[in-house]
Formats: sequence, C-alpha cells, structure tokens
Amino acid sequence: MSSLYHQPFQAPLTPASFLERTVVAFPDRVAVVEGNTRYTYRTLYERVHRLARGLYRLGVQRGDRVAAVVPNTKLALELHLAVPLMGAVLVPINVRLKSKEMSYILNHSEAVVLFVDDTYAERLVPCLEEVPSVRVLIVDGTDKHFPTTRHIEQPVDVLPYESWLHSVPFDPMSVSVQDEWDLISIHYTSGTTGRPKGVMLHHRGAFINAFSEIVEMNLSPDSVYLWTLPMFHAAGWCFPWAATAVGATHVLLRKVEASRIVQLIESEGITHFCAAPPVLTMISQYLESERTGLPGTVHIITAAAPPSPALLRKLESFGAKVTHVYGLTEVYGPFTINEWRKEWDALPDNQRAELKARQGIPYIGLGELTVVDDKMRQVPKDGLTMGEVLMRGNGVMLGYYKDEEATAQAFHGGWFHTGDLAVWHADGYIELKDRQKDIIISGGENISSVEVERVLLEHPSVLEVAVIGIPDRKWGEVPKAFITVQPGECVSVEELQTFCRKRLAHFKCPKEIEFCELPKTNTGKVQKHLLREKEREKQLNTN
Amino acid sequence: MSSLYHQPFQAPLTPASFLERTVVAFPDRVAVVEGNTRYTYRTLYERVHRLARGLYRLGVQRGDRVAAVVPNTKLALELHLAVPLMGAVLVPINVRLKSKEMSYILNHSEAVVLFVDDTYAERLVPCLEEVPSVRVLIVDGTDKHFPTTRHIEQPVDVLPYESWLHSVPFDPMSVSVQDEWDLISIHYTSGTTGRPKGVMLHHRGAFINAFSEIVEMNLSPDSVYLWTLPMFHAAGWCFPWAATAVGATHVLLRKVEASRIVQLIESEGITHFCAAPPVLTMISQYLESERTGLPGTVHIITAAAPPSPALLRKLESFGAKVTHVYGLTEVYGPFTINEWRKEWDALPDNQRAELKARQGIPYIGLGELTVVDDKMRQVPKDGLTMGEVLMRGNGVMLGYYKDEEATAQAFHGGWFHTGDLAVWHADGYIELKDRQKDIIISGGENISSVEVERVLLEHPSVLEVAVIGIPDRKWGEVPKAFITVQPGECVSVEELQTFCRKRLAHFKCPKEIEFCELPKTNTGKVQKHLLREKEREKQLNTN
Ligand SMILES: Nc1ncnc2c1ncn2[C@@H]1O[C@H](COP(=O)(O)OP(=O)(O)OP(=O)(O)O)[C@@H](O)[C@H]1O
Ligand SMILES: Nc1ncnc2c1ncn2[C@@H]1O[C@H](COP(=O)(O)OP(=O)(O)OP(=O)(O)O)[C@@H](O)[C@H]1O
Ligand SMILES: [Mg+2]
Ligand SMILES: [Mg+2]
Repeated sequence: MSSLYHQPFQAPLTPASFLERTVVAFPDRVAVVEGNTRYTYRTLYERVHRLARGLYRLGVQRGDRVAAVVPNTKLALELHLAVPLMGAVLVPINVRLKSKEMSYILNHSEAVVLFVDDTYAERLVPCLEEVPSVRVLIVDGTDKHFPTTRHIEQPVDVLPYESWLHSVPFDPMSVSVQDEWDLISIHYTSGTTGRPKGVMLHHRGAFINAFSEIVEMNLSPDSVYLWTLPMFHAAGWCFPWAATAVGATHVLLRKVEASRIVQLIESEGITHFCAAPPVLTMISQYLESERTGLPGTVHIITAAAPPSPALLRKLESFGAKVTHVYGLTEVYGPFTINEWRKEWDALPDNQRAELKARQGIPYIGLGELTVVDDKMRQVPKDGLTMGEVLMRGNGVMLGYYKDEEATAQAFHGGWFHTGDLAVWHADGYIELKDRQKDIIISGGENISSVEVERVLLEHPSVLEVAVIGIPDRKWGEVPKAFITVQPGECVSVEELQTFCRKRLAHFKCPKEIEFCELPKTNTGKVQKHLLREKEREKQLNTN
Repeated sequence: MSSLYHQPFQAPLTPASFLERTVVAFPDRVAVVEGNTRYTYRTLYERVHRLARGLYRLGVQRGDRVAAVVPNTKLALELHLAVPLMGAVLVPINVRLKSKEMSYILNHSEAVVLFVDDTYAERLVPCLEEVPSVRVLIVDGTDKHFPTTRHIEQPVDVLPYESWLHSVPFDPMSVSVQDEWDLISIHYTSGTTGRPKGVMLHHRGAFINAFSEIVEMNLSPDSVYLWTLPMFHAAGWCFPWAATAVGATHVLLRKVEASRIVQLIESEGITHFCAAPPVLTMISQYLESERTGLPGTVHIITAAAPPSPALLRKLESFGAKVTHVYGLTEVYGPFTINEWRKEWDALPDNQRAELKARQGIPYIGLGELTVVDDKMRQVPKDGLTMGEVLMRGNGVMLGYYKDEEATAQAFHGGWFHTGDLAVWHADGYIELKDRQKDIIISGGENISSVEVERVLLEHPSVLEVAVIGIPDRKWGEVPKAFITVQPGECVSVEELQTFCRKRLAHFKCPKEIEFCELPKTNTGKVQKHLLREKEREKQLNTN
C-alpha cells in the first residue's frame, strides 16, 4: 500500500481510487462490453494495472503527458483509469481532427507516449515527424505489425497494444497520486470560438465531479452505461470514473449509429447514456421510422444545446427520461443541471418543454454560479436581463495549459467566465441565450442569435440554422441567417422572413437569408466565427 | 456572496453548502416533519439562517463550540446546518447522559452556548453552575418562560428558542468556512470502553462522508428519511447533511417506539432509516404481534452490531431491504459497508445471513482499511486469522480533542486503530470478531467473546448475553457469561453449558454463568468493563 498518507486522515482525492475499490466489491460484474468482447472488473483491474506498469516501464514519469487518438473503445476507458493511477497526465484527442490539428495538440502538450486506434494511425503517422516529444507509439486494433512504421524517420518505438500489454507482468501498483491538485488530464476545447485551448483538470476536481454525476444521475451497481458521448470530449463528462466507481457496466461504442444504439439498449439493458441533441434527433427519427419505442426506461443526459420541445416530447413518448445539463470542457463537462421538480410533471407539454430547456442550477457539490453584466454586477433574476454566466468552485479547471494570458482573462475577478450569455429566472434557474461572441447588437438592442434560430427552426422546411450579425451602416449590426433546408423541402427567403415577422420583433428578424451547408466543429457545433469571416471577406471584396 | 475563493477553482469542501443549493432546487419540498409540524426547504433555509445569524449576534465566533442536549427534533437538524454555516463547532450531547457526564463534556469542550430541549432542562440546570464557559442557554420546547432560571447563580442568559429565533432578522449569511480542515463538530464517544473521548470532525470529511452516504444508500429528492438513529450519535452518520443535500424529507422522531415508527413509515412514505439491531428487533416483534408487514419497501441501514440471521430473515419477509454497515464515532459513523452482490440473492437464507453479517469493505471514496497483527503486519485473507482493523483516508477524524496522547496512540503507524478485531475473508470483506479489549486469552488460545455470545443467543431462553474473561490460575483467563433470560422463561446453568459444549470447542465454553441485567451505555451497548471491574472486586474480596 502507498505511503502517501502523511496523516491517517489525509489522502488525496482522486478518481484513481475508484477501481481499487470496485474490484473488491464487484470483481465478477461485467465491466466492459465492446462488440463480442466482454470482461469483468477483475479483468479490467488487471489490464489497467498492466497498462499503468507498462507506462512506468517505458519511462513515463509523474506529470508526463500521455496522449490518445482513440474512439470509444476499451483502450479509451483503460487509459482514463491507468494514466491517473500512475500519476501521468492524459491528453485525449478528438479523433476527427485533421493531422495538423493533432500535431498542434501533441506538440503543445509535449506528449511522450501516444496511443492510437489503428483506424486513425495512417492519418497520424505523417504528423509524428513534426512531433519530436513522442517517443513511443502504441497502436490498438488489428494487433498485427503496424504497417506504416517505415514512414517514421525519427526513433519512435511502435508497439501493438494487446501484445505489449500482455508482455507486462501483472503486479498491482499503488495509486501514485501525491497531491490532489496534480493534473489528471488536459482536454483541448472544441474550437468553436477559435483555436482550441488546453484545459487543465486535476484529481480533486475529477473526484468531486464524478461523485456529483453519480448522485445526480443515480448511478448504481445496476447501471449499464452506453458510451455514445465521445470519451475524448470534456473528460467524457467524468463518466469513465463515475460509472467505474459504482461498478456499473461500460458498453463501448466505436461509432454513433441509431440502429446500433437501439439494439444495444435492448440487448445490454442500457440504463443511461449521454448525447447532444443531434444524436437524440437521429435516434428519435430512427425509432419513428421503425415504428418502435425504447425498450425499458432509459435515462438520457443531454447537453451542448437545449433539447427542443418537439424532441423532448418524442423521447418521452418513447419511454426515455431526459435530463438537460450544461457545461464546458473548462468545468469537467456539465456544471449545471435542469434539476426537475416533481410538481412540473403535471404541467402541459409545452410548458414542461420550456422549463426543461433551461440550463438550471449547479450540480450538488460543484460550486456556485452567477450571471453578471459587463461591470461584473449581478443581473436581476427577472428572466429577461442577459448577462454572462460565471462559475466557481471545485468543478472548475486549474487554467489553460501554457497560456497564462487566456487563464487570467478567463479567471478575471475570481470567477470563471464561460463566455455564455443567459438570463436568470426568479427561481434561480439560468437559461442560456447565446454565446457572448455570437450576440448581435443592432441599434443598441441585444439580439440573441439563439432566439432567432429557435424561431426559424419551428418552420417545417428548416433543418439547421445559424444566425450571426453582419455590419450595417445604420444599425451597426443586423441579423443574417444561414439555413440548411430539410431534404426534399423547398422554401423562399420571403416566406421565412414573413414567418419571422409574425413571431419576432422586427429588428430581430434576419435582414439577409442564405441557404448553404453550415461549417461545424468535430463535436458538431456550428462555427459561427467562420461564417463571420466569410461575411467580412465578402464585404471587403464588394467595397 | 463569500470572498473565500482565492481562486475560481478553490472552494472549501463543506456540507454547509448543501442547503444553499437545495433551497434553490426544491424550495417547496417538505424538508421537515415533526408531529403535526411540517415545513418546506424554504422555511428550513430561513430558520437556519436566522439561527446562524442569531448565534453570530450572540458573539459566537469562528471555532467556538456550541453544545446541544437535544433529541431528534427540528432544532437538532437546524443546529447541524446552522452551526457549520457560521463557522462554529457543534458539540451534540447524548440526552441520556447523567448531569455529571454532561458537565464533563461541556467543560471539556468549553462550550459557549448551550441548546437544550426542555425535557432535559431540569437535569441540566444544576450542572451549569460547574460550567463557567456557557454564557447563553437556549431552551426549546414549551417556549414559555423557562421556570428554573432562578436556580442559576451565575450570569447565564436564558432564551426561549422559538421566540428568540423569530426576533433575529432573516438576512442570509454567506457560508463562513475558511478552511475545509476546520472543525465542524466534536462528538464524544459512547464510552463503552472507558471515559468518552472528543472526536474532532472537519468540514472536508463531513462533505465526503455525506456524499458517500448518498451514493451508497441511493438517496434522492424522493427519499423520506426517518430519524430513528439519534442525531447526536456519531454525527447522525452524516445524514443531517446527506439527506439535506439531495432535498429529501427529514421525518423527526423524539422517541423510538415501534408502533410510531411503523405508523410513520405508512403515513409519511418513509424510504430509509438507520437503526441498531435492538431497535430492529423491537420493530420486528411489533410487526409480528400485530400480524402485519411494512408498508412499501423500506431501506434499513444497520450498525453497532451485525444483524442476526433470524432478524434479517424476518425483516426481509416484512419487505425491508437491510444494509449492514460498520463504523465508529472516529470515522463519522459508518466506514465499511456490506456491499451486496446480486449473485448472493440466489443463496439459501442461512448463507445469505452469514454473508450479510460481515462488515464488508470501505464505502466509496472514504479510504482504505487493513487488518493487522500486533506487529502491524497484514494478516492473511483466510477468514480465520484475527487482527485489528485499521483505517485511513478522508473518512477519518482529525484526532481526539485536547488529548494528544490518545490521538497519537490511535494514529500509531499512520493508521487509525479501531480497537476492533476482525478476520479478513478471501474476497476482501472483513468480519468483526470482537473488540480488542474484550478478547479472551485462555491457555494461549484466543476466544472471541462475540462467538460465544452468538451461540448462547441461539438458545430460546436467552434474551441478552455478555461474555468476558475472568482470571484463572491454570488458563490465565476463562470465559464467563452474564445472561438475561427471556421474560417468562427459565433455564439452568447446566443446560446452557451442555448447549455450548455441543456447539463450541470446550475451552471456549463459559466456565461460569451468571443471570443478571446487563450494564449498558446510553447507546445501548453492554459495558463489559463494568462487568470486569465487578469480577475483579469480587475476587479481591474472596482472596
Ligand atoms: N445545455 C446547453 N445549452 C446550450 N449550450 C450549451 C449547453 N451545453 C453546452 N453548451 C455550449 O457548449 C459550450 C461548451 O463546449 P465545449 O467546451 O465543448 O467547447 P466550445 O466552447 O464549443 O469550444 P471553444 O471553447 O474552443 O470555442 C458552452 O460554452 C455552451 O456555449
Ligand atoms: N456493524 C457492526 N458490527 C459489529 N460491531 C459494530 C458495528 N458497528 C459498530 N460496531 C461497534 O461499535 C463501535 C463504535 O461505537 P461508538 O463509536 O459509538 O462508541 P464506542 O466505541 O462504543 O465507545 P468508546 O469508544 O467510548 O468505548 C465499533 O468500534 C464497534 O466495536
Ligand atoms: Mg468554450
Ligand atoms: Mg470506540
């Protein structure tokens, strides 16, 4: 056992302790299901300890960064458990990034070991030449000799994951966390608003976030968690640790496909999964087309955008329980929850949907929030006045890696600035209105791009929409909408403008409407800054 | 809002934060039920903030001790929430203690304010003369002018709780916890093994213990918690904070009576309660005599002693789910849990009871344990070798108040020494065998007094039993049993001895048997040290 206890009552808070306990409590419970592979917590424990010891033997030291380009496979889960256990820092990378983006992150984090799923290996190998820090590449998948080693000119050891793992003796390590404030992982943000930043998370925060997730989502040893949410996205909202802590089963999913999800819900008895509204829309459309429902009550946790009333209604009719949460990579995933009050169950559908669209209040134990104007004064709780959402407490990151300026800016005044604008309702629940960078100021009035988008989305022909502000001589800015039409549908600019004018104050209605495909990040968010750039260029060209 | 955040990510862990959140999430949920009184979290919040501010106005400072001689009433709950909120230290005192014992605790803790339920006021007033530190006495109950003030010769302000509370303006305070390692409360141990010691608990530990209790017991906003367990006993196992955190309803209970408990389970829809086996026996006997069961599934958490197979069988047949936990005042109440594995459900009754009698493994997140011999070497996990149970981690107290020697002894070697002897099973679950001070050493062999007691309890005429070691020329020690016979039953020494010899190795059978009433602590535990003293005196008189 470790000698890290200076006092019997002093132990670092770390999610690395969870597996140590679960393997005693539930050794024979199925920990991992991935396709036809399934194994128990006893096996997971053994594999995780081999992995941790293997890294140690490769010379990985406390605080070193270990990166991973891995989809939701058992390797992803094992890394989330093994890397923190041996005191190193995990850097999960979005598998959909381009080579250049990946090499930026690898260099920025100075990763020494890189894990890659062989689907992505071809894309990664060329970029390794530009990443001198990486000494070892561990490839998971076919487990054959990795065919592309010959492309690598610098001395990088290439190891096949499974056989390397089995070459490491099983000899349990003690949890090597010295200080609960030590980094557990660095997560690069989606890059919706610019270049991704390296969010530093620590053991203490991850422990508390995981606990809070267990409590809010009622995770238990009977839970079966489906990995629809990418584990590389905002620490998988701490579910790698939360589900392990209670001895739940992790059902891994390499690719998000509605039919496969529904099939797994049935065959594995899924109790919980997390997904952004677009994934839920996909599932809901699939269920409709198959004229079927969800087998059993599934608890769905959704974030990234508020679920629309129509979607909510459908999911509930299929037998799902939907919880709406809100957060950022900077706060370990969700920070607020639309804590549902029983008395709201009795309200009519549309009112319930309106209430559920609100982002809510902080999770238990994570900290507090406020909504402030540009002078950091709290806005009134009137459901009308917009302000920026600030957060603080144990659910907040340590800062941005190697970026003191961005950190200082984000932490200005002792609070974390989310960059999200919200109103504060009288009952203390917040409701997001826009990103600060996306708000449109027209003739001195604030226009929430989200509000305009929501109206347009109600039009049956509109599939997707993004509204931005474009420069205007008279008003400063005016709204412009970019629209993707539903497949097979047809609609005119005039019709949409009339539609808006019936539902919105005139100054809020889009002055221009353009039909196109929307640029998106790899987490599926519209990149409005690219739309704005395009507009600026167009204007420069016309003037 | 408080300015205690040096950094946006640094906030002290404290259960004082829970009510602040719950009042936002569930303001209209019933927080407190006590007889005909029932009020919401909004009201509880208001009362708690008045109480905190009232204490502040009385001059109570951060770190000052506030004592309470209060049964399970709303005042008890309010104190557990208000005192930590304003940074003072709560000292809950067992209401069944004698005046002398109370004044010992009041003096030892140097309490400045004392809350008392008027049922106990008469008993307390005389002792206040010996307690110079107490400046204010606040009496809860009839709320008439307290009739016994005239007996108090020193200047003690006597205030009636309810009217004093309402005289304090409602003006919410911010949580005044500077450091998560600050004391939250001091709890005096039961005194089973000698003079009670002041166990120092801190905010961080209470926060984590409460969280762990929520997770293990599946507390949720739908929970209705019945206060059968005295709140003054080992911090009420952190349920004042845990149940508040999730927005559960606290149903208070001044006196433990089977009929009232069963009635409340029905009328309030109780989902959880905690109780020692004697209370459960009482409930079970009542249900049997009334030929009825429990209305709905109730989750019962039991500790202090392992529940007997017969009791378990009965409770389960009444529809209860029983969880067996083990802990001490020194570890905020429970530290280990008999984490139940689904596959055990299929086993025959007696095997299930045997498995459930084990004290188990640490709760999630609380820390780790070991079982060691007298040289601090881990004993084998063979289910046979006895050793002392040691614990460490965030679930352990800071030490004994003003008793460095006892603290050093308890913390010897970097672990908390429980003084309890257990075997360690191959699956990692511990099973208590005896208290270290109660083990009998006869002819070099260890005899677990608990083992002998368990055999005697199987005899239909035996109601209660305590086995101790008495000096013996030849063997060093031999077992002696003290027995209380079931009302209306009759049994001879010889019959009991024959009964034992059929079931135990001969050296384990009691050499002497005495029929008597057993001396007990106010938490219902047999005081074997008093029996031993009596024996020693007897021996001195005969020699
Ligand atoms: N429930 C929700 N409702 C509305 N918006 C949400 C919700 N949950 C998350 N978001 C949005 O997602 C953002 C967090 O996303 P994430 O941390 O993945 O990266 P990003 O902010 O999109 O990228 P970058 O910070 O690099 O620009 C929040 O700031 C918020 O704007
Ligand atoms: N589930 C259980 N099974 C057996 N014994 C238990 C269980 N739970 C608690 N105990 C006993 O209760 C003790 C803790 O009790 P508590 O802290 O209330 O005071 P005490 O130890 O009786 O008093 P003192 O320390 O003053 O002698 C443990 O050390 C253990 O001996
Ligand atoms: Mg962001
Ligand atoms: Mg004790």
